[in-house]
Amino acid sequence: MIKHALKNRRATDFSAWYQEVITEADMAEESGVRGCMIIRPWGYGMWERIQRLLDDQIKATGHENCYFPIFIPLSYFAKEAEHVDGFAKEMAVVTHHRLIEQDGTLVPDPDAKLEEPLIIRPTSETVIGTAFARWIQSWRDLPVKINQWANVVRWEMRTRMFLRTSEFLWQEGHTAHATRDEAMEETLAILELYRSFSENVLAMPVIAGEKPEHERFPGAVATYSIEAMMQDGKALQAGTTHYLGTAFAEAQNIRYQSPEGELELAHTTSWGVSTRLIGGVIMTHGDDDGLRVPPLIAPHQIVIVPMLRDNDEDAALLDYCNALVASLKQGSAFGEPLRVHLDKRALKPANKRWSWVKKGAPIILEIGGRDMAAGLVTVIERTALYGDDGRLASKAMTPADLAAAAPGLLEAIQQQLHAEAKTRLDANITRDITDRAALAAHFADAAAYPGWVEVSWSKPTGAGLEAIIEELKALKLTMRNVPQGSDAAGSTCFFTGEAAVERILIGRAY
Amino acid sequence: MIKHALKNRRATDFSAWYQEVITEADMAEESGVRGCMIIRPWGYGMWERIQRLLDDQIKATGHENCYFPIFIPLSYFAKEAEHVDGFAKEMAVVTHHRLIEQDGTLVPDPDAKLEEPLIIRPTSETVIGTAFARWIQSWRDLPVKINQWANVVRWEMRTRMFLRTSEFLWQEGHTAHATRDEAMEETLAILELYRSFSENVLAMPVIAGEKPEHERFPGAVATYSIEAMMQDGKALQAGTTHYLGTAFAEAQNIRYQSPEGELELAHTTSWGVSTRLIGGVIMTHGDDDGLRVPPLIAPHQIVIVPMLRDNDEDAALLDYCNALVASLKQGSAFGEPLRVHLDKRALKPANKRWSWVKKGAPIILEIGGRDMAAGLVTVIERTALYGDDGRLASKAMTPADLAAAAPGLLEAIQQQLHAEAKTRLDANITRDITDRAALAAHFADAAAYPGWVEVSWSKPTGAGLEAIIEELKALKLTMRNVPQGSDAAGSTCFFTGEAAVERILIGRAY
Repeated sequence: MIKHALKNRRATDFSAWYQEVITEADMAEESGVRGCMIIRPWGYGMWERIQRLLDDQIKATGHENCYFPIFIPLSYFAKEAEHVDGFAKEMAVVTHHRLIEQDGTLVPDPDAKLEEPLIIRPTSETVIGTAFARWIQSWRDLPVKINQWANVVRWEMRTRMFLRTSEFLWQEGHTAHATRDEAMEETLAILELYRSFSENVLAMPVIAGEKPEHERFPGAVATYSIEAMMQDGKALQAGTTHYLGTAFAEAQNIRYQSPEGELELAHTTSWGVSTRLIGGVIMTHGDDDGLRVPPLIAPHQIVIVPMLRDNDEDAALLDYCNALVASLKQGSAFGEPLRVHLDKRALKPANKRWSWVKKGAPIILEIGGRDMAAGLVTVIERTALYGDDGRLASKAMTPADLAAAAPGLLEAIQQQLHAEAKTRLDANITRDITDRAALAAHFADAAAYPGWVEVSWSKPTGAGLEAIIEELKALKLTMRNVPQGSDAAGSTCFFTGEAAVERILIGRAY
Repeated sequence: MIKHALKNRRATDFSAWYQEVITEADMAEESGVRGCMIIRPWGYGMWERIQRLLDDQIKATGHENCYFPIFIPLSYFAKEAEHVDGFAKEMAVVTHHRLIEQDGTLVPDPDAKLEEPLIIRPTSETVIGTAFARWIQSWRDLPVKINQWANVVRWEMRTRMFLRTSEFLWQEGHTAHATRDEAMEETLAILELYRSFSENVLAMPVIAGEKPEHERFPGAVATYSIEAMMQDGKALQAGTTHYLGTAFAEAQNIRYQSPEGELELAHTTSWGVSTRLIGGVIMTHGDDDGLRVPPLIAPHQIVIVPMLRDNDEDAALLDYCNALVASLKQGSAFGEPLRVHLDKRALKPANKRWSWVKKGAPIILEIGGRDMAAGLVTVIERTALYGDDGRLASKAMTPADLAAAAPGLLEAIQQQLHAEAKTRLDANITRDITDRAALAAHFADAAAYPGWVEVSWSKPTGAGLEAIIEELKALKLTMRNVPQGSDAAGSTCFFTGEAAVERILIGRAY
């Protein structure tokens, strides 16, 4: 029987397993500051890879990066009523700009109370819209397509690292267009960009589709999401795009003169993905030995662990390893030079090996005196960790063979991770449940892997929708999205029995 | 007489000129949020270039990036007394986590008052030191060398874009070491990294040296800076590194077990540069036609302005331009592919040309029907804008010749900008002033270009130092730094007449 690197098993306590991966892979830790985490180098390195690759795509589609203030005056926020309702309950409020000492302790200085409180941005539609109103005068100024990488704060009562923290890192795109059609085209183009990024870069298959009415971004006309399936069968909303119509433009006075001389409201969009993606990567690719990082976002793709013995032979071994690093770095995978790391820490080699297994480095090389004498390296693939005998699997290769094979191996690992997750996603969307008893039964066994259920529905609104939401809530279920291209023609609504108009995914969710 | 692109002249109103460059180059604008600016794409693009190139160097010297919370609990902050004194007067304080509607307006919810106020980080020594105390147990854990790119807030009463804003962007490095020598080595190594980065990447010559005692970072044992000379002769402190001794380690309990089994305090450092560098680049390289961006940090190094006429010939012209873009992008300068931009905006070509002159794109190409017919492009160098006749200078080149010459031209522009600034710096440090009357006379004429004065001094402390500070203040002067390698052996102190120990730079400053 395999002795895994982690104490917790996905199958028995997914939540404890998730937390253990984050700790053991040195990805993040509690900061001591309520609801905020410290992202450590291995976790932050993944975020840097995500940033760089996604940023390239955002720029390639004609968006420019800017930076807007972290503070939003309360009055800005109050302009768009629905938007306020959605956020006002969970925001950090700055009320003072100085501390003074009072009876030996520091307190906010009553003389330094702000006339108008400042909100730490939970999202930047209001402050960016105010700038759009200045920038946009004529149809010639449109479209405006900008993006920013920033920290945002939403006060959260129950937090979970990467998935839900009071402060998190994200990118937020904001655009303004002359027409509804152009704004919708943008909204859907970014949805597709997120979908392909998730599949191709994170190796995380997702379903892209429109959120139901009650799950829209506060103030939006339409919200779209990509939904990923975690290994416990729950959904993770991994990215959203919003068509905001003209409501924000009206509240913020974003108007342009058309070629015909008319003053028209702009149509705006916004869209974002966050450090939550890293939580998705963990719960998509992790196993009972820790994380497995897709090579495209691995801070180090290949890690070399020299079997140093603190003696005279170490110098020769390090020379051998350094030559290997230089040779491997000549190679490239996914159009970029390989990222290779030599771990020279003063720890036992076995501990170092297991630390990289838990961190999920795609390829780990162990090199000892015997390897060197034989002109070989010992290669461990993180995605093929154990042999049929249940023991750690490795193979010996010459440095030259390894250098030639490494790019292809990394690309194969990337594909393997995606294929495993795709198989799991496809196998766990149930489409043949047609009555309430079957639905309840499907989700009754907490230990099973229920995944998602897709049903036809009539898309009711108002009280009809409320009733369905409540009914699902009793089963701890939520509506995820209406997959793109969904067609329910000819069928009846699972909930109301009326003619269905589309199909919608239902599941438990983070 | 040349008709320059800006209304303001450096020589007559440097401050208005600075503001006009920022506006006319579309670098940044007031946000409407007190003390905070919006960094627009051209300004943010420069920051992204600075980030990427500096980040590469920070990583190459063994530092890893992390992310720490924006919030610092008040109690963390209170631990290091000197540090608090230095910052407590200018911090944003979060006191509530929710808003409610009261009499029709939104106000902080009295029921959502935080038990302990949170400070928006003005710098992160306290929160990072708390993590260091957890991470560091043994000498084997040292050194710890981390960095973060983040926004910070220091409440400022008088703000100036890029130079002094309430929120700004920066990197802050934080390290812990076993010994004083190692920590000092780190502090000086980063000082040298900043110096060479400023010279080689920003083309901004600086003087590196130690700050006098009263200009130290709050709580530091020694603070070093790089000081750049702006075109109005004032100094800009462009980056600082701090050796913090063991004071922060003591306050935060950062201790390690030595190989001998003793529990020892770690020695810590911190260091940072910020978006202030962009202000330095403007005031170092700008001229009366706007900014001149060093090619290494130019978001676009070459901008093509097609003379579109909104007729049938535009398509062929754009084909010609696109082929040129493709050809130029094959080339590389400074080890990176050329960054080339085709400006297709629906504006008059002359307006587009001048917008890029004001933005300071290093090379501007104008291409009209006649150029295309002749198989040529019209090349304008931003650093050689006017001919001897005072008219805009350009030369015609074939696309092939241009593609071959462009990398060398960009590298020459980078060097030219540095050489100009270096000549100015060297010419404007006066070293032969030995009495007070001469010093006052030197700085008496506000319209002149007084630059800096370097004098020998005896490095007094306490009341002696205070008296000198006051004396200089009357002339609006401050001590900048003691240049590295400064030697005052055998001379007497400018201020006290005692034996001098080193030489120190004096000047007006931002």
